[in-house]
Amino acid sequence: MSYRQLTDHYRRIAHIQHVAAVTAWDEAVNMPPGGEAARGQAMATVAVLLHELQTDARLEGWLQSADQEALGTWERANLVQIRRALRRATAVAPDLVQALSLATSRCEQAWRKLRPTNDWETFAPLLDEVIARTREVAQALGERLGVDPYDALVDEHEPGMTAAKIDPIFAELASFLPDYIQRGCERQTGVDVLPLQGPFSPAAQRDLGLQLMRACGFDFNHGRLDRSHHPFCGGTPTDVRITTRYDETDFLPALMGVLHETGHAKYEQGLPRGWLEQPVGHALGMAMHESQSLLAEMQLCRSAAFWRFAGPLVRQAFGTSDALSDRNLAALATRVAPGKIRVDADELTYPCHVILRYEIEKELIAGTLTVADIPERWDEAMRDSLGIDTRGDVRDGCMQDVHWPAGAVGYFPTYTLGALIAAQLAAAMNEAIPDIDERLAQGDFAPMDAWLRQNVWSRGRVVSAQTALEQATGSELSVEPFRAHLARRYLHDGE
Amino acid sequence: MSYRQLTDHYRRIAHIQHVAAVTAWDEAVNMPPGGEAARGQAMATVAVLLHELQTDARLEGWLQSADQEALGTWERANLVQIRRALRRATAVAPDLVQALSLATSRCEQAWRKLRPTNDWETFAPLLDEVIARTREVAQALGERLGVDPYDALVDEHEPGMTAAKIDPIFAELASFLPDYIQRGCERQTGVDVLPLQGPFSPAAQRDLGLQLMRACGFDFNHGRLDRSHHPFCGGTPTDVRITTRYDETDFLPALMGVLHETGHAKYEQGLPRGWLEQPVGHALGMAMHESQSLLAEMQLCRSAAFWRFAGPLVRQAFGTSDALSDRNLAALATRVAPGKIRVDADELTYPCHVILRYEIEKELIAGTLTVADIPERWDEAMRDSLGIDTRGDVRDGCMQDVHWPAGAVGYFPTYTLGALIAAQLAAAMNEAIPDIDERLAQGDFAPMDAWLRQNVWSRGRVVSAQTALEQATGSELSVEPFRAHLARRYLHDGE
Repeated sequence: MSYRQLTDHYRRIAHIQHVAAVTAWDEAVNMPPGGEAARGQAMATVAVLLHELQTDARLEGWLQSADQEALGTWERANLVQIRRALRRATAVAPDLVQALSLATSRCEQAWRKLRPTNDWETFAPLLDEVIARTREVAQALGERLGVDPYDALVDEHEPGMTAAKIDPIFAELASFLPDYIQRGCERQTGVDVLPLQGPFSPAAQRDLGLQLMRACGFDFNHGRLDRSHHPFCGGTPTDVRITTRYDETDFLPALMGVLHETGHAKYEQGLPRGWLEQPVGHALGMAMHESQSLLAEMQLCRSAAFWRFAGPLVRQAFGTSDALSDRNLAALATRVAPGKIRVDADELTYPCHVILRYEIEKELIAGTLTVADIPERWDEAMRDSLGIDTRGDVRDGCMQDVHWPAGAVGYFPTYTLGALIAAQLAAAMNEAIPDIDERLAQGDFAPMDAWLRQNVWSRGRVVSAQTALEQATGSELSVEPFRAHLARRYLHDGE
Repeated sequence: MSYRQLTDHYRRIAHIQHVAAVTAWDEAVNMPPGGEAARGQAMATVAVLLHELQTDARLEGWLQSADQEALGTWERANLVQIRRALRRATAVAPDLVQALSLATSRCEQAWRKLRPTNDWETFAPLLDEVIARTREVAQALGERLGVDPYDALVDEHEPGMTAAKIDPIFAELASFLPDYIQRGCERQTGVDVLPLQGPFSPAAQRDLGLQLMRACGFDFNHGRLDRSHHPFCGGTPTDVRITTRYDETDFLPALMGVLHETGHAKYEQGLPRGWLEQPVGHALGMAMHESQSLLAEMQLCRSAAFWRFAGPLVRQAFGTSDALSDRNLAALATRVAPGKIRVDADELTYPCHVILRYEIEKELIAGTLTVADIPERWDEAMRDSLGIDTRGDVRDGCMQDVHWPAGAVGYFPTYTLGALIAAQLAAAMNEAIPDIDERLAQGDFAPMDAWLRQNVWSRGRVVSAQTALEQATGSELSVEPFRAHLARRYLHDGE
């Protein structure tokens, strides 16, 4: 039973990934600064150990024998995933795995301290080391897979995705977004939107977040909410850890962050329970993952209908005021305002942040841009796309994201691909659930969750992301539903 | 360079132990109930993986070659520790390691839920499984080491310790403790001790605990304080995690728990930094570890001098009242009162709790007592030693401790051995630092820490616990300093 040997081996890998995920969450949420060096060393050893398991010399033989065995659809799909993982893992030398892990630990740990002090000088050499090692990985993977190095990195986060597919999509977005942003901003002038009057205590923000997570169907028996520098969704499907951070002058960034991560968390919690320890039980790539967070945050929780439900809870938390009316909250949640920070960006300007990062990371991997030149390149792109001057401000410029320090190159495009998928899924869901606004206004996410569970969450990787999307929506990935959604929400009156 | 190969291998083991320690802490502090099953499976895999590393076929050869190399004292002592670990690890089959890990995960997870509901019926079969597997381990280890099975378990926690050494020590304690307890109680009658008037909010208790930890020299750059069912000290030397739990009617249990765990934590934080990833850099067994927590909690922080420092901070936290006078706090901290709960016991009755558990676990491993009969045996012993009826109350009887569910059999004796060592070290320290009371009254732990660092913490395992104790105090382990301390504090007027 070679198939059984494969699954036993992959259970073991899943168990090591489990403790690695808990430890990574702990580092972002709990670890005191003095623990950094030893933690980085420990995590590098775990990375090497996982790599050893994923390149075990017996895997190829087991795969060949398992191919001859009588297997069901899920088992076959699991073999495809294992073969994919083996091909990628064996392309990279163990020493490089360790060197990259150590470089990312050091860089991410430094980033937490250097970003607040706007210290690019100290940070740049550490990032340079990460990019250098990442380029080596990309080179090795590209050779093995017969693809461009950058595509080899993208493929890790979104299987099968390439720059050749992303470029026309981003070009299409770039063709209408500047006009939409301008019209979206103009439409807002003359409309009375009241600003929020803080302070909003972190404790009250947290309680409100927990209430809305509960309403949205987050399963607290299998997860929790904590605080970190950068919101994220980590842990394991049976114990999903989401985080946010609190701004006392404005509760919306933390709250929308919570709702965003809740979308990720529900996907993880909804993965097929019987397959969690096998590759076929994982999520369908990061674009689909982002689609779940953006469907929750953008499509559902920034709608006027949602604020009819959430408004009373907000006023319960912070007291009644005109600024906290359902209508004003919905207006605040859909305000268009070009800004420096990606995670705080509105739906219209968000893709500009992604496209800029995508272009820069492609150039870094191609070797046509050096780390030292990122700030200047960043500033140019921010002026061009959003008219924003970021000179001298790396903190809220190219040092704002944890992705590159953490070695996640090729990840950024999945945010915008996820936004497209979210819009496409939402359109199909709207047809399947005609009373979606009434449901949202009651805080009843059950029918939407049932639809997503059937069409996305429960599928694991038994089909590709493309197939899942086509089966759920009846068409291939397209910019059109996203464009239509933006036009409806930001260019016309009312939703 | 076989020695180098050994240390590289043990660095790897230390790194896996690092993530295992963080994950174990997380389970006790953060994990939602739904995460239990998957976490138990993951931790069992890590236990098997560690066992594989510790039984690597190359170790014996490396050890033999390393013996021929020119090595320093620490390196030689490291070889002794590695040889000891190899001998123990190879005695136990991997399947048994996994079975025991799964059994303890299940039992400890169940214990958290079943103890509050006093549910012995559901709990007993899970404990029975743990004891059955532990007996197999003890049998295998005993055969390998040529010792009694129970001694083989004790040796894991306290190298070289045996029942034959413990029995006369405990007999000596049993010869005077009943009389001391009676006289200690009598001396209290007629003395006005005011009871505490709560409630004491957990947040204020925590803040007070943090203040005193800081005064005691806990290094927050390398550790933190959290909340769990059962106070413990976990994590790693560069990131020590201590926990407590809060009772709103009485802040002393939580606070003394914090001071106790701070003693453990300072030992870990004070271990020789250059050797942390090698066995010779670990602490000198659990008796010495307990001596550090008990020296902090019992010898120092329950003294009248300490409360002259801590009293003002307590009144700052909870307001001024007669019950919170320095004098009354010191009286409360040294009150003698036989009770059901070990962790809340005073110094005079504490050894009775330990002796009872020691006798029971010896019988469990010998097979002369079954798990089903523990409650009856427990009740008899509690009546005999402390005159307390525990019938029908397993919650605060034999289900009160996490040790047996967690598979820690042979651990309990180290608490009382630790109390003896603490008294012996304190006596020597008092001679070395004549103004110790003045220091305590100022909250200045620096001279005591310096003495402990030199005599205990910095030594790692370069000598045995016995040698370290003799070098620090000039004599072998003895009951006398502990007896004298008890007599001074509990039988006479003033300290």
